[in-house]
Amino acid sequence: MSLDFLKEILENDPFLKHVGIKVKNIGHGECALYMDFREEITRFGGFVNGGAIATLADAAGGCAALTSNLGYNEVTVDLEITYMRPITTGPIVARSRIIKGGKNLAYALIEVYDGNNTLCSIVKGTYFYTERF
Amino acid sequence: MSLDFLKEILENDPFLKHVGIKVKNIGHGECALYMDFREEITRFGGFVNGGAIATLADAAGGCAALTSNLGYNEVTVDLEITYMRPITTGPIVARSRIIKGGKNLAYALIEVYDGNNTLCSIVKGTYFYTERF
Amino acid sequence: MSLDFLKEILENDPFLKHVGIKVKNIGHGECALYMDFREEITRFGGFVNGGAIATLADAAGGCAALTSNLGYNEVTVDLEITYMRPITTGPIVARSRIIKGGKNLAYALIEVYDGNNTLCSIVKGTYFYTERF
Amino acid sequence: MSLDFLKEILENDPFLKHVGIKVKNIGHGECALYMDFREEITRFGGFVNGGAIATLADAAGGCAALTSNLGYNEVTVDLEITYMRPITTGPIVARSRIIKGGKNLAYALIEVYDGNNTLCSIVKGTYFYTERF
Repeated sequence: MSLDFLKEILENDPFLKHVGIKVKNIGHGECALYMDFREEITRFGGFVNGGAIATLADAAGGCAALTSNLGYNEVTVDLEITYMRPITTGPIVARSRIIKGGKNLAYALIEVYDGNNTLCSIVKGTYFYTERF
Repeated sequence: MSLDFLKEILENDPFLKHVGIKVKNIGHGECALYMDFREEITRFGGFVNGGAIATLADAAGGCAALTSNLGYNEVTVDLEITYMRPITTGPIVARSRIIKGGKNLAYALIEVYDGNNTLCSIVKGTYFYTERF
Repeated sequence: MSLDFLKEILENDPFLKHVGIKVKNIGHGECALYMDFREEITRFGGFVNGGAIATLADAAGGCAALTSNLGYNEVTVDLEITYMRPITTGPIVARSRIIKGGKNLAYALIEVYDGNNTLCSIVKGTYFYTERF
Repeated sequence: MSLDFLKEILENDPFLKHVGIKVKNIGHGECALYMDFREEITRFGGFVNGGAIATLADAAGGCAALTSNLGYNEVTVDLEITYMRPITTGPIVARSRIIKGGKNLAYALIEVYDGNNTLCSIVKGTYFYTERF
């Protein structure tokens, strides 16, 4: 699986498409995904819903995990999100990098920024590699 | 704020509506929310996207937090999701209860079940009460 | 490995011994460990140090994981502790049960009680099975 | 409270002393704590017990939180530890920095290194400020 193919998979993933998540860039062991600020991703109060942030962060972590063990699919084992600041501007960008990749497990650290490039959430994700594509 | 009003707020929350999350029941310090299994909440591989599960779980935790300190709004501080089994059937139900509610912080434990009533994810959420409505 | 042998291993683990952690009971897929309240496990302020609580909880989760896949060793992948109430009385008891055990990963939910049997911390632990003993 | 006084508090904290945790350096919004590799902090298998790592990381996070809101005490709300590599060499060093400090909550990111300066654990800690000293 090439990085281009991975980009295509992500942009056609049904839920990610529904939420409006797009690829900014994908490298080896890292990636950046983003979504625009639109009303449909907000919550009561007018800022971005924590679930939309979790979706973006998990997608970024899983994507980075895929790049560090190309050819294997993955599932998320644990996702731990710390919400530090409400997000009211876009684009909302999640930058993820693999801290350690192995044969079975990959560990990602993901940072989520608002439209002013302020760090708003920090996220850890643990991914388990499953079958080959 | 009454429990009925809370139900109305949840069902009109832009992102929760976009994801298709509905209220099953709301009590004092607990609630159950659900979403139907539809293609648009799935991920590559055909099972429910982890972000949709996080959204459902966080909404259930936040809702339960609101019931245990009526009149206050809340934000999520930490959300920790353990994905144990992929979900391929609906309705997907998140049952949440407040383990401890305080003046500032509330702690929720949330269980997510698939359409066969199998426990698929366990989630902890920590919520911080903000301003009065 | 029998449950008796597991008990012996736990009670001779260097750090667990140093912290004063003992076995209350071990069953299949569950266990209870405890430690007495002593000054040496406290922190500034006179309540139990969060690290001692984490140690007790992790040991209980790992022990329960071992019982649900006898013969294999395990390492902790993720440990997520929510501290809800300070602990000032003993014995401090951690009750752990395996929510889902698999071939590779086991997921434990652990509750920590103080000497008044009040729930003070909730903990999730994810364990990865390594080599056979 | 000065940084020197904070150092004194940490080094006289009963449990931290019992585990052998010492201060390497303390700055504003950051600190490094360490412990030597000794048998008494190990677990079955000969590597450092996850509870000792949690203790070190939590102390580092709490210390950094204290430096960013001097004069206030704090308690840990959530501690999330990802164990990536077993530790078999010392000194074991935890480096912590406050990602965001506020009036009520502080968020720390903590990295734990073994004696070869390899990153072995990543940890997030959320701290709540309580009374003034």
